[in-house]
Formats: sequence, structure tokens, C-alpha cells
Amino acid sequence: MAVAARAALPLPHLSLPSTSRRSPRLSLTPSSAPRLRGGAATSVAAGTSAAPQQHQVTTRLGDVIEAQQFDRDALNEIFEVAREMEAVERGSHGAPSRVLEGYLMATLFYEPSTRTRLSFEAAMRRLGGEVLTTENAREFSSAAKGETLEDTIRTVEGYSDIIVLRHFESGAARRAADTANIPVINAGDGPGQHPTQALLDVYTIKREIGTLDGIKLGLVGDLANGRTVRSLAYLIAKYQNIKIYFVSPDVVKMKDDIKDYLNSKGVEWEESSDLLEVASKCDVIYQTRIQKERFGERIDLYEAARGKYIVDKKVLDVLPKHAVIMHPLPRLDEVTVEVDSDPRAAYFRQAKNGLYIRMALLKLLLVGNKSLDPCENAALFCMANVHVQILVHVT
Amino acid sequence: MAVAARAALPLPHLSLPSTSRRSPRLSLTPSSAPRLRGGAATSVAAGTSAAPQQHQVTTRLGDVIEAQQFDRDALNEIFEVAREMEAVERGSHGAPSRVLEGYLMATLFYEPSTRTRLSFEAAMRRLGGEVLTTENAREFSSAAKGETLEDTIRTVEGYSDIIVLRHFESGAARRAADTANIPVINAGDGPGQHPTQALLDVYTIKREIGTLDGIKLGLVGDLANGRTVRSLAYLIAKYQNIKIYFVSPDVVKMKDDIKDYLNSKGVEWEESSDLLEVASKCDVIYQTRIQKERFGERIDLYEAARGKYIVDKKVLDVLPKHAVIMHPLPRLDEVTVEVDSDPRAAYFRQAKNGLYIRMALLKLLLVGNKSLDPCENAALFCMANVHVQILVHVT
Amino acid sequence: MAVAARAALPLPHLSLPSTSRRSPRLSLTPSSAPRLRGGAATSVAAGTSAAPQQHQVTTRLGDVIEAQQFDRDALNEIFEVAREMEAVERGSHGAPSRVLEGYLMATLFYEPSTRTRLSFEAAMRRLGGEVLTTENAREFSSAAKGETLEDTIRTVEGYSDIIVLRHFESGAARRAADTANIPVINAGDGPGQHPTQALLDVYTIKREIGTLDGIKLGLVGDLANGRTVRSLAYLIAKYQNIKIYFVSPDVVKMKDDIKDYLNSKGVEWEESSDLLEVASKCDVIYQTRIQKERFGERIDLYEAARGKYIVDKKVLDVLPKHAVIMHPLPRLDEVTVEVDSDPRAAYFRQAKNGLYIRMALLKLLLVGNKSLDPCENAALFCMANVHVQILVHVT
Repeated sequence: MAVAARAALPLPHLSLPSTSRRSPRLSLTPSSAPRLRGGAATSVAAGTSAAPQQHQVTTRLGDVIEAQQFDRDALNEIFEVAREMEAVERGSHGAPSRVLEGYLMATLFYEPSTRTRLSFEAAMRRLGGEVLTTENAREFSSAAKGETLEDTIRTVEGYSDIIVLRHFESGAARRAADTANIPVINAGDGPGQHPTQALLDVYTIKREIGTLDGIKLGLVGDLANGRTVRSLAYLIAKYQNIKIYFVSPDVVKMKDDIKDYLNSKGVEWEESSDLLEVASKCDVIYQTRIQKERFGERIDLYEAARGKYIVDKKVLDVLPKHAVIMHPLPRLDEVTVEVDSDPRAAYFRQAKNGLYIRMALLKLLLVGNKSLDPCENAALFCMANVHVQILVHVT
Repeated sequence: MAVAARAALPLPHLSLPSTSRRSPRLSLTPSSAPRLRGGAATSVAAGTSAAPQQHQVTTRLGDVIEAQQFDRDALNEIFEVAREMEAVERGSHGAPSRVLEGYLMATLFYEPSTRTRLSFEAAMRRLGGEVLTTENAREFSSAAKGETLEDTIRTVEGYSDIIVLRHFESGAARRAADTANIPVINAGDGPGQHPTQALLDVYTIKREIGTLDGIKLGLVGDLANGRTVRSLAYLIAKYQNIKIYFVSPDVVKMKDDIKDYLNSKGVEWEESSDLLEVASKCDVIYQTRIQKERFGERIDLYEAARGKYIVDKKVLDVLPKHAVIMHPLPRLDEVTVEVDSDPRAAYFRQAKNGLYIRMALLKLLLVGNKSLDPCENAALFCMANVHVQILVHVT
Repeated sequence: MAVAARAALPLPHLSLPSTSRRSPRLSLTPSSAPRLRGGAATSVAAGTSAAPQQHQVTTRLGDVIEAQQFDRDALNEIFEVAREMEAVERGSHGAPSRVLEGYLMATLFYEPSTRTRLSFEAAMRRLGGEVLTTENAREFSSAAKGETLEDTIRTVEGYSDIIVLRHFESGAARRAADTANIPVINAGDGPGQHPTQALLDVYTIKREIGTLDGIKLGLVGDLANGRTVRSLAYLIAKYQNIKIYFVSPDVVKMKDDIKDYLNSKGVEWEESSDLLEVASKCDVIYQTRIQKERFGERIDLYEAARGKYIVDKKVLDVLPKHAVIMHPLPRLDEVTVEVDSDPRAAYFRQAKNGLYIRMALLKLLLVGNKSLDPCENAALFCMANVHVQILVHVT
């Protein structure tokens, strides 16, 4: 009787695609769809024309290893999902997301980076997922033990669904991804890459200015050593009609490899020593910290470089109304505190965008770009209840 | 049809106040009601007379910065909620609370304090909330980087709903609260304040003895350096007919500022060197550890002070039946192990009360003092299902 | 009317045993059934013959302190539950387990052991439970403070439902268990025991080979110092017709106490210096790491011992098809990387089994061995909804 009643239920609510993953009763299919490892995201349309609440699994990223892996389409998709995440986060208290319920993220940090780790863990939690934290991952491979990164990854992938790796060696994230059967996100590997920072920087420009094509961007400060500005230059070059101004002390000037790359992409750039003039023409001033540790014993050089280009009230006075000040944080005094209260000071919003970008990446890597329509989960949830109700009612 | 059926549902189950926050479907209002920052708690009655399951949002604290911020009414309200938390905790296994579901607490600890951190994190979890842990928050502002506390707070508030701060500098909690747009709880700021410890101490007296007015309290041990006894003296002075006995080695006597404060509040106090005589007259003996680190190289003075006033079997022999022994823990041998099995040894219950007080504060800071009636959540939950059921049944 | 309708519901769905703990509405009974402390598991049948979805609370372990505490029946029960956990883990994404929802595990680690901690925390999360992490538990009893382990346990048990203890002192787990009113699991206490490792080793043999009786087992490497192989020898001796081969450099030979123990249990063993010959006859080759730290300044002895018995392609060539290579990890080069791709390389599956064994233990310690039939939770869940539905529908 219960069975008959179930069979009589209206089709639209039952004919869910077999890849549906939110119903606790109708489908237990694990997340084993083939992932596109380390490449750009592409679309895989799920043919589920019968169902009104259609699951559009259009994207599943493989790993996030370096900024260059993303083409414009992939960036656009990530940014669209990141934008949706603002609503997901806003709904946390009344209607917390369960998109990643039952998923476990391991933050495998070989060096501490509280800021990055926190934003990843917050991202996972805001999507209903859980976290395993390892801030002292070096202990895995401590002197006496000497385990390889590959062996560690093989162990940790048995305990989790995704690994966020922070490592001191350039290339570690790629090695981890090559080993793991679960997605890996590079949360910074030494002097190498920090792709989620690059993504949140570009996303912030788009979110603040409304567009990326045609942007005039002033990169200020330590352009020689900061991987942030280098990655940003790589990513922004994918857009049209970009103009970049480099403003930096001589000792930390932008290196030729990036200049050559920009030339090869047809991106216009010029060097300037006049921050005010640059600020008056830019949409974005991206300030960075002069890294003391790069100067060794030449404290005099550091002090000279550090004080040279400060974003302060005078910069604000010439900066266009629609423009913004960005900074990857932490800052010392290269952006003065008086700037904070200006609406064009975007650096704390930028830090917050790190949350949205990481939420987007976690979602895309773990469940793909299926719709976030709130009715969908509800419908699936109701599906689960249908069986129950009928068992009970038909007596 | 589904809509019609929904409209016909009995009023009592639908006419929920719009501030209801537990329904994932009916209300997405974020927790943005204005908070009373840093002041005493006051009452805000929610006019929802129509609904039988009425939400009484009577209190929303702003921040918890120092013991003195609470008046008697605020203390009473916190203690009432703490009492309710005992049932919430007992129900954890069968019916875990979801009061703070979707809320994220960041424990921003600039120095480790495992005991305090654990009890806050347990409190958050027992209410259905989630936790971001940062035990090495100093890394935020490490030498090379030098970020200000204010900048760190502005970043972390983007990732969480409440910050529990442990800092090495007096006044840090106040600075954090002045910066943050989310609630801040001071979990100890250097030699400054540790208000949640003071609250749990006073709550323990009330819980164990049944009243606070008229209490006779013996403060024993290091009265000069212990911020615990100092805060306790401040708080207990808010009650009527208090009598305090100070029992301490000469080198760590209670300081004049507290004595003056008690005088100004009309609280009777006296110093005594006879612990047994004091114990025979008190409702509460509050023993504390002599802090070796305060004596520098004068180990001889430390050893003399340390052995002088020990709570042991002899103290129990003269202590009234209804009285209790308290201690903020950890202890060395200033309370002997033989005391532990006596029902008047209240220090482990006191530690447990730390959980209830912190649960109460988290609830009050994040969702206010709405009713914990178990039917309420159920009713709201059923509301969410109603829609679903009707969609399915009316075919 | 609502009440009448409820009363008319079919009995099978309502007559749940009063110990049922998953229904948020029907039973709030806390987990207070008497636990069998530190002894072997025994069966307690719950007389609930009327209900089709019957809860069989057959086992509740007390604590997990040492490998020897388990008899064959207890081992079998743990292994059966561990096997069920594979399906629970597979279902994590679509239908995450809520078996331990509302339970809080404290990982109280006095020394870091990221691998062990991670697998316990993953186990708790995969069952729907929550975690309090304390990797620096030594801070509890830091020099200045000097709290005893017993006092720490009394505090932490107030904040959690189960304690996983890693300690540097042999016997610490037993002391903790004697103090605590909640279950304690020994996650390694110095040179003492690491019983969950021993359990996962034996489980892996059973899982890989299909049986434990009649096994031929080669123990290779550091047999003198490795607590792993010593515990394994103790546990495997509980089975029939076991043959053990000891293959180790002279400086780290198996000690007489284990040999005597095996003799007393009638377990056949022999020593061999021919790894290839042993490998050709065994079902399991259990390789271990030579621990450099045991050799002090005699690096020459270490280097000689370390290179002597390596599991490599040559060992694979003679190893029977059905046999497996095990290793407790981490490894250096005592198993060469070329072995990894051979299906008989079981060490990463072995590490994964640590997850299943720990899931099983957490479940058995916290809620006992009640059925994991997926219909059960559903039925109970529907029970909760029944009340709701009727309140709503009968209008």
C-alpha cells in the first residue's frame, strides 16, 4: 500500500536526475564524477529535461594550483558563484546552507597562515561543511620521521574530501594534486603561487568597479618580491584594454618577466614615480607592503623604500570618485589609518571577498555549479519525507 | 492549490513574529537588531501577543568586556539563562540545541589558554554553533608583518559572527569591541579583566548557596595578584549584606583599591590570619593559587606564602554543612586532594558552570533572550514542512 | 483531534524502546546506561520484540586503554562495526550519518600526533559528532601551573562526552579513565600502549586476507622498540594456528617477553634473517621503520640496521598473490616507492582502516552497538514528523 502510494506520486517530484546528491533517501551516489584535473573549467550539461527542478551540473573544477590555470570563462563562472555566496552567507543565521553538508575539508598547513586558514574554514562552515585543522603539518614529516609529502597526502585523503595545502616549497601544491584522488587547493606554496589571493583580487576589482575590461590599475610598493602583484598582473592580462602603472622604489621594481608577459599579451604598461599623478588616472590603486625581510642588513634601504609611496589623504584627494584603494593585508603604514573611513578604501571588503571566492571554489570543486535555487533543496527534502508520510498516513 | 491549502492552516502555527530566526523558510531576517554596545543589558519587549509560541526577545547584550559592566538585573538575566543551559546541555544527545545553528564563533587567542578556549568552544557547540579556532593569533601581527589588533579584528569579523578574544595587553578587548561590528567577548586581556571567570564565580555561589545577598565569603591565598578575586570582589559588592574575609600571607595581601571600593559600596570586610575561624563562619571559602611567577628569585618567600593557608580536612571539619569550597583552577596543593570527595568541594562544578555561563553569554549576544521552549523550534520546523507536505499531498 | 489521530497511528511505528536516542521529540533519555569500564564488551539485549525496527543495544564499551583488554568476541564485534562504517563513510555526502549528532569529543593531546588526531576527528565528524581540539594540552599543566592529569580530566569531562588522550607517560590513559565519568580512549601513552593502532592492524589483516585464524605473519624491522609490532603480537595470539616470523637486524630483535607470551599461548614463531624466504611463505609482511632516535650517537649502527631488510620489487616477486604488505606509517625507504602501485601494498588502505576502527570505537563507546539500518533513523525521524503532520492536516 505504501509502495503503491509512492508510485502514484506526481512525476515531477520523483524524476530527479540520478546524480542528485542532496536527498538522503533517493540517491546515495558518491561524489565520484570524473574531475577535470588541474585544467580550466568546462561545461558538462546534465540531461534532465523531465524534471522542473533541474540540476545543472555545469562545472566541476579539478584542483586550484596556480592563477594561470583559469581562462576568462572559468574566472567568470567562479565570480558568478562568488557573488551568489554573498546571499548564502547572509542567510547563515536563518537558513544556513547545507550545500557541503557531509563534506570534510582538511587544512594541511606546513606553515601557519592564520588569515588564509580562517577564511577557508569559515568558507567551508558557511556552506555547511566540516573542517579538519592541521596547523603543524610539518610534524607529519618531522626530522626523525621524514615522511614525504606524497605519503602524507595519501593518508590525509583517506580522512577528508578536499585538501587545502599551505607549504613552504614552490611546487608542493602541484605534487600534492598529482598524488591525491581528491581535490587540492593551493593556499600558498612558498615563493610559488597563492592563486586564491589572485582570484579574490581580480574579483574585488570586478565587484567594486563593475568591470575588468578597460581597467586602469596602479600597482604600488614592492613589485619585485610580492607574489600578489605578480599573480594579479598575470590574471588581469586576460582582460581587454588594461593599462597598468608600476609605482615602486627602484630597489623593488617590477621584474622583466612580467613586463615581457604583458607585452606579449598586448597589455599597456608604464613605470612612474609620481603616485599622485597615477592615482588621478586610475580605477584601482593596489598598494603593497615593502617586505623588510627581503632587505637583510640593509635597513637603510628598507626605510627609504618603505616611506617612499604612501597612500594617504593626498592620494584620496586626487583619486577619482569611482576608484578604489586595495591592499592584500596585512599593512603597516603604507596605507594610513585616515584612509580607512573613505568609502573608496576597499581593502577590508577585499579581505571579505576572500571568503566568497573560497566558498565558490569549495562549492565548485566539491559539488560543481549546480543551481543554488533554495527551492531545490526543499524539494529534495520533501521527497525524502514523502515516503515517510505515506507509510504513516495510509493505514 | 498548495497556496490555498497553506492559507487555510490554523493561525497559531502561522502567525509567527517576523523576528523568528529558526525557520529556514519563513524568515531570513539576519541578526541585525541594534545591539547595546558595552553597556548593561536592558529589556526590549517584542510585541507578538497573537502567537501562543511567543518569542520574547528581551535582551541583547553588546559585548562582554569587564565585570563592572553588569548591573544586578543583567547578572540575574545571565544567571537565569545559564540555569536553562543545564537542560540544554543534558538534551544534547537526544535533542541537540540549534539555537546558534549557522553562527560562527572565532576564538582569537593571542596567548594559549586551553581551559578557557575549550569551555567557549564547547559552549558554542552545545548550542549548535560552529567554531573557528586561532590559538596562535600572534602570528597575525608577527614581527615582520606588524598588523594592528584593529586591522586583525576588521578581517576576522568578516569571517565570523562573534569574536572571543584572549590578549596579553590590558585594554585589548575594549579596543577590539570599539572596532568590531560584531560582538566581542573578553576571554582575558593580560593583567586586565577576565569577566566570564568573574561571572561564573558569582553564578556558582548563587547556584550552590541559593542566594547572593547576605553571603559570607572568605577570599584566601594570593589576593594581591589574582585578577579572579579582585573581579569577584567588584561583582559581589553589587549584592546586599555581603561580608568578606581576606585571608592571605602578608606579601600578597588585598590591595587598598579594592578595600576602598568595598567601603564605598558599604560592603563589610576584615582581614584575618586564622583560616579555620573564617571557615567556620563562611558560606563560601574561595581559595586561590599563590602565583610563583610573581616572586621572581625570592623562592623562599614563595614557599613560605604557598604553604601558609591550605584548605584541607581540618578546614572541612569546621566548615558549615551548607558552605562550599571554590577555586578558579588550576590548583597545586592549596586545596588537598582529600577534599575532593567532600560534597562541599565545588570547584569542579564551578569549572562546569563556566560552560553554562559561556553558553548563556553566547546566546544572549547572538540571538538575545528569546524563549527556549522546546515546542517553539518544533513548531517552526513543522511550519517548514507544511509547505512541503501540501505540495505533495494535494494532487 | 490531533491527539486522537496520533493515538490511532499503527503501533509498529510508535512502540519504540525508551532507550531510543535519535528522536528529538519522543525520548530525551541521556546516554547514561551503565558502561562496562575497561573490560571486554558484553551483550545486553534490549527487549523490544514488538517493534519491527528494533534497536539492539548489544554492546557498550567502557574505555579503550590497552590492546589486551579485548577478547575475540569483542574484537569481532568491533570489526563488524568497522566494516559497517565503510558504508557510513561512503554515504557521507548524500546521507551523512547523525549517529553521534550532539556528541562532543575532546582530543586531549599532550604531544602532537597529527595523523592519529586527524583520523579520530574525521571519524567523529563522519558520524555526525563534533570535536574540541587541544593539541597543546601540556599547557594545562605548564610549569608555573602544575595541574595534575586527574584535575585536567575532571575539567575536560565537563565540556565533552568522550576524551581521546595522547600522553607522554605510560599509564596516563588508565589514570584518566579511572578519573573520568565519560569514556576515555588511549591514543598512545608514551612507551605504553596505542591500542587503536593494534586494532586497525588486526582489522586490516582480516579485511585483506579474509581471516585471522591460520595466518602466517612476517614482522620485519625494529621489533625491539616498536610498540606497534609488540601490540600486534599480543592481539594476533588470540587467534588459532598463527605462525609468526621475526625478521630484524640483531640490534633490534624481538624481546623475550613477547616470545614467552607467544609460547604460553601456543603460537608458533621463528626468527629468520632471510626476508625473501619469509616473504614467499607469508600472508602478511608487516614492515616497520628503524627508529633512528633509539640509536643515540651510534649512527653507524642505525645506518647498518636501516638498510638491512627493505621491502622492494624483489620481495614482491616472491610474495604470494593473495598476500599483503603492511606498514604503520610513516615510512622512510624501508618500503620502496616502486611497491606502492602493487595491489598487495596495503599500507594506505591500512591507514584508512584507522578511520573505520576509530568510527567503530566512538560509536560503540558513545551509543553502543545499535543497528545501523538506514530505515531506523528514517523511521524515528518520521515519528517526529507524524505529530507535526497531524497537527497540521487535521483541520
